[in-house]
Amino acid sequence: MASRTGRYTLTLDSSPSIIGFASVVGKKEGEGPLAKFFDNVFPDDTLGEKTWEKAESSLVKSSLTLALQKAAVSSSDLDFIFGGDLLNQCIGSAYAVRDFSVPYIGLYGACSTMAEGLCLASLFVDTGSAKKAAAVTSSHFCSSERQFRYPLEYGGVRTPTSQWTVTGSGAAVVSASGDGPKVRQISFGKITDLGICDINNMGAAMAPAAAVTIKQFIDDTRSKPEDFDMILTGDLGHVGSKLLIELLKRDGIDISKNHADCGCLIFDGEAQDTHAGGSGCGCSASVLCSYILQNMAQKSLKNILFLATGALMSPTSFQQGESIPGIAHLLHITA
Amino acid sequence: MASRTGRYTLTLDSSPSIIGFASVVGKKEGEGPLAKFFDNVFPDDTLGEKTWEKAESSLVKSSLTLALQKAAVSSSDLDFIFGGDLLNQCIGSAYAVRDFSVPYIGLYGACSTMAEGLCLASLFVDTGSAKKAAAVTSSHFCSSERQFRYPLEYGGVRTPTSQWTVTGSGAAVVSASGDGPKVRQISFGKITDLGICDINNMGAAMAPAAAVTIKQFIDDTRSKPEDFDMILTGDLGHVGSKLLIELLKRDGIDISKNHADCGCLIFDGEAQDTHAGGSGCGCSASVLCSYILQNMAQKSLKNILFLATGALMSPTSFQQGESIPGIAHLLHITA
Repeated sequence: MASRTGRYTLTLDSSPSIIGFASVVGKKEGEGPLAKFFDNVFPDDTLGEKTWEKAESSLVKSSLTLALQKAAVSSSDLDFIFGGDLLNQCIGSAYAVRDFSVPYIGLYGACSTMAEGLCLASLFVDTGSAKKAAAVTSSHFCSSERQFRYPLEYGGVRTPTSQWTVTGSGAAVVSASGDGPKVRQISFGKITDLGICDINNMGAAMAPAAAVTIKQFIDDTRSKPEDFDMILTGDLGHVGSKLLIELLKRDGIDISKNHADCGCLIFDGEAQDTHAGGSGCGCSASVLCSYILQNMAQKSLKNILFLATGALMSPTSFQQGESIPGIAHLLHITA
Repeated sequence: MASRTGRYTLTLDSSPSIIGFASVVGKKEGEGPLAKFFDNVFPDDTLGEKTWEKAESSLVKSSLTLALQKAAVSSSDLDFIFGGDLLNQCIGSAYAVRDFSVPYIGLYGACSTMAEGLCLASLFVDTGSAKKAAAVTSSHFCSSERQFRYPLEYGGVRTPTSQWTVTGSGAAVVSASGDGPKVRQISFGKITDLGICDINNMGAAMAPAAAVTIKQFIDDTRSKPEDFDMILTGDLGHVGSKLLIELLKRDGIDISKNHADCGCLIFDGEAQDTHAGGSGCGCSASVLCSYILQNMAQKSLKNILFLATGALMSPTSFQQGESIPGIAHLLHITA
């Protein structure tokens, strides 16, 4: 039964367990520093499909199937799947989940989707609304480039602040009982928009939302940054991470010692030419559901905050001169 | 505290109240049979904005503001807003909700969004995760045509099975206590895809999902169609409604006597040349949050099932030859 802590945070009194998690990625991610932690690296980013969108759906199917296997749970044991992605009308998830025959709650939180889905899955389990629920999301470099920027064939030059969309998917299964990492608290964020209009600088657009959500959690729970082994953001990248640390310092919150970002962890920026780092729903999902949760399962990480940020613009809103609204949802997870 | 009834249905033991609801629509909807029930009819579908997408955001702001006023609640009393729409990256909702400064849970359920959001808002209130929560969604004929079909200027001819996207928005505020209509039970649907590929026949693509969700609710609760004053679908239109009745008859469930559809109610098909009826997230939202909930508040409707169906394809998936996955979420509401 969830209880409110402060104004914005929900404490999940039953501490639901993440009993299974998996991540699958593309070739480039498999050449990065986290290579050995992924469950599957696809050597061909098409995954044998005819289109990038179908390849992205295959990533989702693959991570969800593996997470269920690792949790020793069949899809008929799941009460709900929470999913979504970056593609128009979230087709990456919908076409993948179609075959699982499980009630589906479709989300749109842009790159915050893994945190949004995992918050909801955990809350559903904690309140007894589900016994088991899964959260899944994905992104694909090629489907994202086509949709948000230019067709690959155009060969557009990337700005220094631009990020590289991760080809990957992560899935997690949450259960009322089990041995996995426990979700202790969740905090859903507000839309935050400081007027950033540069579509090649997502980190800057999303950092203010991350700052707002971290501050609301710290205030609600009267905790300190040093209470946590790691404060992990989803895909702020190198530019957004610096800004986040700066913004929180102004509020007297210093996360510089234990902040990490999935977008900075997943690629070797210099060797892999990924500019400001990784991004996309699949970035936070694949890093959380590999390196991070594996370390928590082995107790080398014991107490973390995980928050994923989303930039809620579209190519249309950008062309119409709108600024980029950001959002961030947060989970407090312990080993 | 929600408790499970059967395999798929959650009974909300505290019966959360819909304490405020509002709907706003465009000119054509204001000339239809439900004109007098809408809170506001905008005579100009631009709402004074420079783009259709911004006009759609204005619809959302307007319905949400009115629903809060009618509930005598300020936005700071809300714990969550659940929203989403049909536009790429759901910008209709995100840009509208930005100014409310309330934690936002973004959804993508296509035209099922009003039911999805209202299910979640009601469940959050029932489980004590929120004291008050709002659900809102929208659609706009002109932004939808541009995105899903052709620019208006092209003047494409409409097929007989095509539906007319409603320009409108509906919002509802759910609270733990209050006098409004009560949400008794909710049932989230599975993705259902019988292989329909005709993008001009959404009714046919979505009817199977509606049939699956109604059947799962009837089975779970051991109820009969005649237990309800009305079984209301969101936007199956004339073609999809006929198919739904037919599909359920095969399962021995006869809803022909008390089935109604928001897409059939909102327009006078012959006089308004709307072919198979209204559609869009805003169709079910604006009809539910006007005509239906007003009748429930006055006790002329006492016991209904409301389900909204969504077609989860995108123009890209259609161009790639994919069929159209449907989904339907259901609420049992009493006066």
